[in-house]
Parts: sequence; C-alpha cells; structure tokens
Amino acid sequence: MTASGTQLDALTAAGLRWHESGQASLTGPVLRLATELDRAFAILGDLWQAEPEQHPATIPAARMHELGYLRSFPHQVSFAVALDGSPANLDGFRAGPMVTADGVTGARLAPIQEILTPAACYHIYGAHRGERLDGPRYLTTRNTCFRREDHYRPLRRQWSFTMREIVCLGSESNATAFADRARVVVSEFAEHLGLPIGWEPATDPFFRPETDPRYLLQKIQPLKIEGRYGDLAIASVNRHFEHFGELMDIEVGGTPAHSACLAFGTERWLYALLDTHGTDAQEWPDLTQAALDVRSRMLGW
Amino acid sequence: MTASGTQLDALTAAGLRWHESGQASLTGPVLRLATELDRAFAILGDLWQAEPEQHPATIPAARMHELGYLRSFPHQVSFAVALDGSPANLDGFRAGPMVTADGVTGARLAPIQEILTPAACYHIYGAHRGERLDGPRYLTTRNTCFRREDHYRPLRRQWSFTMREIVCLGSESNATAFADRARVVVSEFAEHLGLPIGWEPATDPFFRPETDPRYLLQKIQPLKIEGRYGDLAIASVNRHFEHFGELMDIEVGGTPAHSACLAFGTERWLYALLDTHGTDAQEWPDLTQAALDVRSRMLGW
Repeated sequence: MTASGTQLDALTAAGLRWHESGQASLTGPVLRLATELDRAFAILGDLWQAEPEQHPATIPAARMHELGYLRSFPHQVSFAVALDGSPANLDGFRAGPMVTADGVTGARLAPIQEILTPAACYHIYGAHRGERLDGPRYLTTRNTCFRREDHYRPLRRQWSFTMREIVCLGSESNATAFADRARVVVSEFAEHLGLPIGWEPATDPFFRPETDPRYLLQKIQPLKIEGRYGDLAIASVNRHFEHFGELMDIEVGGTPAHSACLAFGTERWLYALLDTHGTDAQEWPDLTQAALDVRSRMLGW
Repeated sequence: MTASGTQLDALTAAGLRWHESGQASLTGPVLRLATELDRAFAILGDLWQAEPEQHPATIPAARMHELGYLRSFPHQVSFAVALDGSPANLDGFRAGPMVTADGVTGARLAPIQEILTPAACYHIYGAHRGERLDGPRYLTTRNTCFRREDHYRPLRRQWSFTMREIVCLGSESNATAFADRARVVVSEFAEHLGLPIGWEPATDPFFRPETDPRYLLQKIQPLKIEGRYGDLAIASVNRHFEHFGELMDIEVGGTPAHSACLAFGTERWLYALLDTHGTDAQEWPDLTQAALDVRSRMLGW
C-alpha cells in the first residue's frame, strides 16, 4: 500500500496502474515489456525443451494441506469462495447493504474447497501424480499467484502477481544438474540485461518458523537460493529432493522422483528493468535477443 | 461435473485435464490451440487498433456493487479472501484439522473486499473512470473469469475460464458501428474456421430475473446478442448504452460515453473447434491465417 511518490509516478508513466488491493494493471509500454519478458522466459525454457502446461486459477485445499502448505503458510493463503447458493441465503443478501466499509456482508459462504494458486509449480506435482518416468521430464507453467502480505508495493510485493516456472522431475542427479544450470542461465540472462544480481541462500516465509520442521530443514539443507536485485528476489532455484515425488507417488527408475524448480517473478523483473534502465521504452534492452543469446551460449552447457 | 465419457476421453487425448472444481488444465495440442486462438483474437482486435490492457485477478466488491453486479448475480459471484491474520486465529487454525470433507475449517476469515473477475471488461470501465474523450477509444483485455454454476462441463461451462474482450468507448454511433462490425467479424472468422454459428438475442443469467429491472430492460432492448455454436454461446456482442459511461463518469463530446463490447469465451471456441474438426491436431485449421484473412477482408468495412 506504500510506494514512494516518485517511484509510483515513474511506474505510472510507463503504463502501470496501482490498486489499493495490492495488485497492478499494466498498459502501454510496461505491458509490452511484460509480454516480451514472458517470451524470453519461454526461450530460456527451451534449453530443457520444457513442455508447457496451463493450470487452473485454484488448487484444492485438500491437496495443499497434503503438501503441508496450510500449516506452513496460513498467513499468506487466499481462498476462492462463493456464497451459499440457497435462494433464502441469496434473498437475504440482496435485502441488505451487501457491501459496507467492512466488506461484503449479510450472507453465508459456501464451504471453502479451493486455494488461489500460491506458486505456479504446485499444480505440476499433482498433475503428474502416479507417473513412472524413464528419464527426466521438464515442464513449464505460468500462473497468477496470490500471497497475502502485511503491506504491498507496486511490482515488488503484490497480493497477486505472475510467476513463470520451469520444473524438473527426475533422478537426484537430474535435479542437481537442472538446479546448477538454472542458476547459470539466470545469471547470464540478468547480465545480458544489465541487471546486477547476487545469489543468496534463503528460506520460505514460514508462519512461526521456529516451530516448523520444514523451516529447520531449509536452514540445514541448501534447498532454496534466490537471485536478488538489491534485496529483491527476482528468481529462485529450489531443490525439493524426494518431497513431492514421495507425496505424489512419482517414480523414476523405481525410486521416488526428485524435483527442482526455477521460478521467475515477472513483476519483480519488470521492476528491476525499470529501475535500471528507466521508464523510457527507447532505453530498454531487447529481451528476446538477450534470451536467444543466452540460449545459444548455454546449449553446450 | 458431468461430461459424457466419450467426450471427456476425446478432450483428454488432445491434452485436457479436467478438475472436480469445474476447471481445466491444458497441455500439449489443446494448449497450443488455445495459444494460437488468443493470437487470432488479437489480430481481429487490430481492426480497431485496440490497445491492450492487463488487469488484476480481482475487482473491488464495492465497485461491482456500484455497477449492480452483486444484486443481479449473487448466485454466480466468487470472492478472494484470506484468513483473519491475528496470530491467535492462525494458531487456532493450525491446531485443528484445517481441511475436512466439508472444506477449510477452524479459522475466521478476513473481511471480503474483492471479487474474482466475473467478466474481463468490468475492469476497463473503472480504469477509464473520469476520462474525457475526443473520439472513440478501443481497448482489449483478457482475464481469467469466475462464474459459479450448478454444474460444470469441460470447456463448455467452467467455474474459471478465459475471456478475451474488445471494448468500445465513444459516442452512440461509435458503439453502434462497433457492435455491427464486431458481429460481422465474428461471423467471418467462424466461417473461415468451418464453425457454423447463429446469432440470437440473449439475456444475462440474472438471479430472480422477473424482479430485476436490468433483466426487463434486456428483454425490451436488444442489448446482447450471442454467437452460438449449437446451443453454446461462444461469442457475444453487448451494448451498454450510457450505463457504464454514466456510472464511471466517462464523457465523449460533453455527454456520457456509450460503450459496447465483443467477448470471446476461449474454452468454448476450443470446444467448438475440437467438436467440428476432431482431436487430431493435423486436422485443425490455421487460426492465425484465418484471422489475417478476415482482417484483410474487413479493413474496408
């Protein structure tokens, strides 16, 4: 909800419109930049011949509970929910003010069964449940993701934002090789774009981390590294070991599959690009060419 | 939730994965078809030099109430909502089962302020609030839209689906000309794709329509016509007269702007294409070429 005036003014000049809910509209130059950026991510994904998948806006709460998400991140979760559909409930709703300063009022909700996607890759593990793989499999997906935060800032911290991910399912060595190469790909791409980034081990923002065994595991094992522009994580490379393979019964060569993912936060890349190159589109780098160059250089890696 | 086995099998062969929540994942051939279809819609939008806009996943409940949506469609609305963020509430949630067969349980929700987008164009009227136009303005936007229904069917009736819209803001004659041309564009495009469609006047699915003055108005004035493949509306052309112009204080030449929109239901076009041409990608028409042909023919219209 807070953004220094100058920064928001500059972003507005590039076509951003900021909403009190912690979300952004993109128009004009910044929308063209976002479109080109996702095309560049797709070109990088070609390095693994990643197969595209498009998944729903929501994911079952029962599955996210199974994956441990609700226990670890109850403060961040957003749900999709309808009104209880009985005519009496809907009539009662329409008889009242329906919306006040305190929000929607005067109706019972239907049971909550679905969570608005918190990270694009969660859909992939469920989509490949029960698979028996002969070798590594690479998938890519993009989704609108929701994370509730204490405060929001345009492009840097939003309630909803766009995440592009590339996921590896395979053996331990497949996952290790993917994670190593992913980090180099991101570094090279950022360098081509003139964005200084540094890599830092990181932990996810657990609720009451000291009581969460998954947090403690992340502190011991280097599960997550973030590519940071200043203090802003614009990409992350995550190792899950057999976590999702075991939970989703995915096997490779008779043992639980390992997985790893590379995640790009699209709006944060937009922020880094605008912060580095300014809001005049004439000064922006050619993202497609940068991705093509990186892909050529990395093909033999 | 119901889909005849044969139909779902055929869609699955083309890469569709159906979810109990009434949503679809797209992979493989059907995802490539969806991507090409949206590119074709963008080519058709070029006929009006429609400016692209990308809007958030949700829209304020207060604004949708102002636009009359909650009173008319309480049975269809879906909300985005978080848990009340107090530590005690979240601790209580984590101490319980969190998810049962009846859904998410054991926590208070935060106030509900946002509605998951019910139609892509609603964002546009708010985004242009207060504008004073010299002439017509054409915008295009795509969004994931949510409508709760009694039952769902793959691609034909989903809880969440993709809608591409082209919107005209301008004078009454601008809106009339847009609506007339839009109908011809859709007819020509469908004909190029071998899809038989017929146009029918339609009303929106109001709750208790007989008591809703907006329904009665739609019965009197031809506000909405649907392009139907069989009984499936795959496109609609909608006239709003000054409705949104007055509510959002948009003026052209000193008087409230008229508006009209052309809406494409992406998944329903996929259904029509697969139903007509089968699920073998070799047999599918070239959507980009069809759109280019229609654009060429219509340029002088």
